[in-house]
Amino acid sequence: MLTNEISFRIRYAETDQMGVVYHGNYAQYLEMARVEWLRYLGISYRDMEENGIMLPVVSLSISYIKPALYDDLVTVKVMLKKIPAVRIEFDYEVTNEMDEVLAKANTVLAFMDKEKKRPIRCPEYILEKLRK
Amino acid sequence: MLTNEISFRIRYAETDQMGVVYHGNYAQYLEMARVEWLRYLGISYRDMEENGIMLPVVSLSISYIKPALYDDLVTVKVMLKKIPAVRIEFDYEVTNEMDEVLAKANTVLAFMDKEKKRPIRCPEYILEKLRK
Amino acid sequence: MLTNEISFRIRYAETDQMGVVYHGNYAQYLEMARVEWLRYLGISYRDMEENGIMLPVVSLSISYIKPALYDDLVTVKVMLKKIPAVRIEFDYEVTNEMDEVLAKANTVLAFMDKEKKRPIRCPEYILEKLRK
Amino acid sequence: MLTNEISFRIRYAETDQMGVVYHGNYAQYLEMARVEWLRYLGISYRDMEENGIMLPVVSLSISYIKPALYDDLVTVKVMLKKIPAVRIEFDYEVTNEMDEVLAKANTVLAFMDKEKKRPIRCPEYILEKLRK
Repeated sequence: MLTNEISFRIRYAETDQMGVVYHGNYAQYLEMARVEWLRYLGISYRDMEENGIMLPVVSLSISYIKPALYDDLVTVKVMLKKIPAVRIEFDYEVTNEMDEVLAKANTVLAFMDKEKKRPIRCPEYILEKLRK
Repeated sequence: MLTNEISFRIRYAETDQMGVVYHGNYAQYLEMARVEWLRYLGISYRDMEENGIMLPVVSLSISYIKPALYDDLVTVKVMLKKIPAVRIEFDYEVTNEMDEVLAKANTVLAFMDKEKKRPIRCPEYILEKLRK
Repeated sequence: MLTNEISFRIRYAETDQMGVVYHGNYAQYLEMARVEWLRYLGISYRDMEENGIMLPVVSLSISYIKPALYDDLVTVKVMLKKIPAVRIEFDYEVTNEMDEVLAKANTVLAFMDKEKKRPIRCPEYILEKLRK
Repeated sequence: MLTNEISFRIRYAETDQMGVVYHGNYAQYLEMARVEWLRYLGISYRDMEENGIMLPVVSLSISYIKPALYDDLVTVKVMLKKIPAVRIEFDYEVTNEMDEVLAKANTVLAFMDKEKKRPIRCPEYILEKLRK
């Protein structure tokens, strides 16, 4: 329950003139992985947001170990760090088809009431899914 | 009144592994040029949107003539095609510091009521500015 | 042989504050579709580029009909317009899960010698695949 | 010599459906700030790369404090942390027009020989500029 992974191909638009993936694009890959982790739990982030809960990123850190190349089939493994309270924290590992580690990352996100723009606790229906 | 231009440097993130600006990024450059054209008229697109009018792009066409390179100082000239009604149409010319034409483009945008998501006519206060 | 399609989910990063996909991002979706069309033919664009042939976009035109939303499962159908010579032309149709047409597009690309930066004819091994 | 700042307007394309700048875009802003810091020292990153030295990002960390909005005039202050050796480290502070701190960040980059893809020491001509 606490871990999940996604795989996808690197798009041409995501490379830069170093001939590798632009380092700023990893933020998107991490987000895709945690959205799919939520879906795997049975939760749609889209529905969550439509129901008034946002999850803005509070902090992001990435270590770049090896570059990803155009058309590489890349895997992002996402791991929940602990049972969430007002924040939710994930570790990530990005690998390529040869199982080489390309990057390691960590993000912290905050549960927020979309209307009041105020922090809230992790919704009970998420905690329930995590207990299973 | 009917024409304006902006200049800016190409960002590293905007290049791709061909060593030139990724072609899809021109859509952003055109948008930046028309927003500054509006500001030059005395209209803030941000205020316009906050006041309930959106301007989604209805069509976009670009001819790519010569590539833009990283760190190039690029100029986008925007030209209003005709007095707007329910739609507003612009032509664009993108040039580099040597005055070489990099691209020519055209966009059509629609005035939309943000709440009702329905097309509306160009607001009178914009038409007034154009008459001056 | 002359047509192919891909499906993928809209990323959060691809939306803008109108709450829909930023119109400039469609350029990437079209590219992803034609790269997969090539792969379906048995050709890797990555290998092609490594072997000295580039395919820069010469013109792009898109009509936006209905917006794509975050997390939508979008399909891009790509259709080769005619047997390529020095250029290759594609039409595209972008649809959502309800089979609503979101956009129609056309791109023209040029075969280029990467070293000499000069136009060349479509490689014989591509023409051969198309004849099958 | 050890600090510099740039200001620029947030582009529409850089927002997401939360109505704020997409968090992943800050990587670009930091890069723009350090490239202008180099230019201010009298060094063109473009020339540096053409002369065979690359500066890939080795690590990136960002704390997000307050969101940036569309059309905000944002300032990025970049501060060299110490005299570079094989790596170069910067701290950053991102503020808006009301001087509110939007984000704090840190990046570490590595000097690399572009051909040999191997780490090298910071070029002497950069160290010289820093001594002045």
